[in-house]
Amino acid sequence: MSTDSSLTLISAVRTFGGWLKRYKHQSRTLNCEMIFAIYLPPQAETASVPLLWWLSGLTCNDENFSQKAGAHRVAAELGMAIICPDTSPRGSDFPGEHDSYDFGSGAGFYVNATREPWSKHYRMYDYINEELPQLVRAHFPLNGRESISGHSMGGHGALVLALRNPGRFASVSAFAPIVHPGQCPWGEKAFSGYLGDDRESWKAYDACELIAKDTAKQPLLVDQGEADNFLVEQLKPELLEQVCREHNYPLTLRRQPGYDHSYYFIATFIEEHLRYHAEHLFKV
Amino acid sequence: MSTDSSLTLISAVRTFGGWLKRYKHQSRTLNCEMIFAIYLPPQAETASVPLLWWLSGLTCNDENFSQKAGAHRVAAELGMAIICPDTSPRGSDFPGEHDSYDFGSGAGFYVNATREPWSKHYRMYDYINEELPQLVRAHFPLNGRESISGHSMGGHGALVLALRNPGRFASVSAFAPIVHPGQCPWGEKAFSGYLGDDRESWKAYDACELIAKDTAKQPLLVDQGEADNFLVEQLKPELLEQVCREHNYPLTLRRQPGYDHSYYFIATFIEEHLRYHAEHLFKV
Repeated sequence: MSTDSSLTLISAVRTFGGWLKRYKHQSRTLNCEMIFAIYLPPQAETASVPLLWWLSGLTCNDENFSQKAGAHRVAAELGMAIICPDTSPRGSDFPGEHDSYDFGSGAGFYVNATREPWSKHYRMYDYINEELPQLVRAHFPLNGRESISGHSMGGHGALVLALRNPGRFASVSAFAPIVHPGQCPWGEKAFSGYLGDDRESWKAYDACELIAKDTAKQPLLVDQGEADNFLVEQLKPELLEQVCREHNYPLTLRRQPGYDHSYYFIATFIEEHLRYHAEHLFKV
Repeated sequence: MSTDSSLTLISAVRTFGGWLKRYKHQSRTLNCEMIFAIYLPPQAETASVPLLWWLSGLTCNDENFSQKAGAHRVAAELGMAIICPDTSPRGSDFPGEHDSYDFGSGAGFYVNATREPWSKHYRMYDYINEELPQLVRAHFPLNGRESISGHSMGGHGALVLALRNPGRFASVSAFAPIVHPGQCPWGEKAFSGYLGDDRESWKAYDACELIAKDTAKQPLLVDQGEADNFLVEQLKPELLEQVCREHNYPLTLRRQPGYDHSYYFIATFIEEHLRYHAEHLFKV
């Protein structure tokens, strides 16, 4: 296992007075080279700043959010860094790894796979939860305050990361998250493939299951478009509402009429999420 | 020549309270099916609104600006529609049409080609200047006030359209425009191919040449990133400065330190351009 923690800069682009920087590094958790992007606001040139984790959805990589969410303007105003990891290991080329948009490359589901051959590389939970935080804290002017958000598969990832690590994040939000992967086709396909058929093992990566056992009661902010094509079959926000109601869990679920699953939906509401996270990140 | 002016809706996506709609239609000017996108702000549901033309650069189509510029937020606030045409005819498949990023498909350069085989389809000047305006005015709640902007090849297009049609646009701006296509490799390649070797014929599509003969003196707003890879060889803003100085032409050229040629540059400054255009579009 390599202990190399060096970063190689791929590109640096000026945006809203700050810098969007893409880096590659050798991941010891994933056993492959990974790319991530980090937005450093203007304030990061002279001070340490808080960090928002953004976890992307199926088929995305580190670039989609930066290009399409329109988040840099508000991040620059607030003085907030944003890190965008990739959504899966890359380059292992297992049989079938690139055949589906919803399993394998671009679809790591933020779990630690236990089934061969995926277990050798597909350990995105540990990568996002341990290796990448250590790496970015060592290399960038961050003040240790962190929040998390994400979209769809990445909304699932954000909820799971926050629920499993109470106190780690100042705040958590999600756009159109997969709230109950154990009870939707995307989740069942991915968890069967990465974790096997023992559904008990799936519960550690299922927001609805975690909420039912959680005592930390972190407030959850969730936006869901009502014209989302995946609403009924995959996303099922009513299951999140139900478990939160049953366990008196603080949920703000906003159903947005007419909005779909695209980045236009995210762009419309990202400012409200960033300001919500800033309220918690900058709280003394 | 067909007189069909019907539109077929491809998609409608809710964004910032308005709608981004993509349409296809049979263009009689270009002799092919074309796609364009129009952003209709919330105000368009109950009133007619002004229209901003956005002309995109090399390799782009109707989608890049909508996805990456982050313009809908401000357009929704201001009550401004934005139309994004494609950058060339599509589907003719001439020999060599798809071989270069800077000639043929995705690179129409907003000229009326006179050389075979291009002259049969590549008449983007007339398409943008005549056919498409008539079409959108017939189909959308527009109030007749129009401004124009664009990026790179599209910045060239915006300047040329405005300079050749004094009074047509309330205001004009450009991001990193090709200001003197007759004196840069991109322009020389495109104009030779579309217009032939008689450089006199090129002058009708060259902002610097048009400014030297123009008496309308429309104010020009131009942003140019100083870290733009194409600055020295292709864009040459100093030529625009020079001709405007010589002819007492009102130019505001803003050199933006550190910014490159990408949509991150556009996203950073699009709000200022939209507010600039709104000042003119909403002037009584």
